[in-house]
Amino acid sequence: MKLKLGLCQMNVTADKEANLRHARELLTKAAVGGAELAMLPEMFNCPYENAAFPVYAEPAGGESWQALSAAARDNGLWLVGGSVPELAEGKIYNTSYIFDPKGNEVARHRKVHLFDIDVPGGQRFKESDTLAPGDQITLVDTPWGKVGVAICFDIRFAELFRIMGNEGAALICVPAAFNMTTGPAHWDLTFRMRAIDQQCFVAGCSPARNEKASYVAYGNSLVADPWGAFPLHMDEKEHVQVVELDLDDLAKYRGQIPILSGRRTDLYRTQRQK
Amino acid sequence: MKLKLGLCQMNVTADKEANLRHARELLTKAAVGGAELAMLPEMFNCPYENAAFPVYAEPAGGESWQALSAAARDNGLWLVGGSVPELAEGKIYNTSYIFDPKGNEVARHRKVHLFDIDVPGGQRFKESDTLAPGDQITLVDTPWGKVGVAICFDIRFAELFRIMGNEGAALICVPAAFNMTTGPAHWDLTFRMRAIDQQCFVAGCSPARNEKASYVAYGNSLVADPWGAFPLHMDEKEHVQVVELDLDDLAKYRGQIPILSGRRTDLYRTQRQK
Repeated sequence: MKLKLGLCQMNVTADKEANLRHARELLTKAAVGGAELAMLPEMFNCPYENAAFPVYAEPAGGESWQALSAAARDNGLWLVGGSVPELAEGKIYNTSYIFDPKGNEVARHRKVHLFDIDVPGGQRFKESDTLAPGDQITLVDTPWGKVGVAICFDIRFAELFRIMGNEGAALICVPAAFNMTTGPAHWDLTFRMRAIDQQCFVAGCSPARNEKASYVAYGNSLVADPWGAFPLHMDEKEHVQVVELDLDDLAKYRGQIPILSGRRTDLYRTQRQK
Repeated sequence: MKLKLGLCQMNVTADKEANLRHARELLTKAAVGGAELAMLPEMFNCPYENAAFPVYAEPAGGESWQALSAAARDNGLWLVGGSVPELAEGKIYNTSYIFDPKGNEVARHRKVHLFDIDVPGGQRFKESDTLAPGDQITLVDTPWGKVGVAICFDIRFAELFRIMGNEGAALICVPAAFNMTTGPAHWDLTFRMRAIDQQCFVAGCSPARNEKASYVAYGNSLVADPWGAFPLHMDEKEHVQVVELDLDDLAKYRGQIPILSGRRTDLYRTQRQK
């Protein structure tokens, strides 16, 4: 079975309304390009700043949620709606809403691992100053099989991906915003390795790079396949691109190098704790 | 604390005696170069062929074991003795003997994941035709902290490395022999990612490349650090190289990006099953 996956590497501004409008334009472009499932970047409606998260946060069902639902419905798309700051019970989460082509929310991933980093001479950021962590692993049933969702720093944690792989993920979608320290060092590498280890496709959708932002996103949205190659790999500018993934290839990769089937579960196991 | 690690990327021939003599020469060279812990490649006494394993196999204490023990003692080296075919109870294992500087065997890793691969147009090999798998995860107490040992295809299995990382490995030593299909595609990548994920050093020691062998090893012996950089990286030819690793740097890396400490063990855990 084939899946046409569309990635919208969008320019994000400080104007929430404009961001929502622009996201809908890009999603329409993806659908016109044939996309059946589309992705937006992490924090696509909001500058990536701790000061902004509380200001831009909305509850589920708010205008950002509505814009995403409408974009999915109007374009007949499955949608991994990047992420937005979600307000819930007085806390703010970094949340990806996932919609079916009727505009129904079918799942919601709240970033599980908050981005707290301090590289001397490089990037500093402490998401946990304003955000609360999610506590769910997110796998969605789609017509193409199970699709996992993780957000940015979540990809640093091999075990989260192992569990999604063990539970049958054919594709893992990762709205993300690596920066100019970790991007050149680890972005390509990490997506490739998670795809090789899980023998599934792993897609990353970043904001386009804006050198004037306080947090400069790396861009380079991509899809990695189980051989570690890139069926799609952008540069740093705004783009909408659609790639066709043949999910039947997964069996081929899994036969060539028995990583999933060769696991020694008599010696080790990675398991959900809830 | 600093560790001088020596890697012997050795030309392996079909002459076992010559291989053992040559390994001892290279280990002496490593010691002269300052190495405190040295590594040999996978199957350094034997062609990498299923037909050869039963012919070259010896029990522990045999001439290959004796040569390794003597090399460790004579040079005052900790030694991860590559690997050799080990005969035990009628089975053959792909085994790495580990010695202290007195020549005592302190641990023994039997390759846990056998190399069964079938890439159309590329590499085919089925170790399980002749070899039996080990059933132990191997961590050794050394003056530099815990050192994990895995052999080649074992590195494909993230959970084995996760457990060694969880249990405090500062360095993981991997005698290995990737080939001309998987080497260019996955060798550098996999060592880098295991080092980044475990925030420890990971060293790979390969045979030198011999284009005339039935199985052509990739070479490119290396050490990856927790940032994914290479403090040491060879080409394909025979070399002995020594690199100084500052183990105090591990705390620095672990502070910059909290991968080990940020794990959500309330959501997932990787655990030994025995």
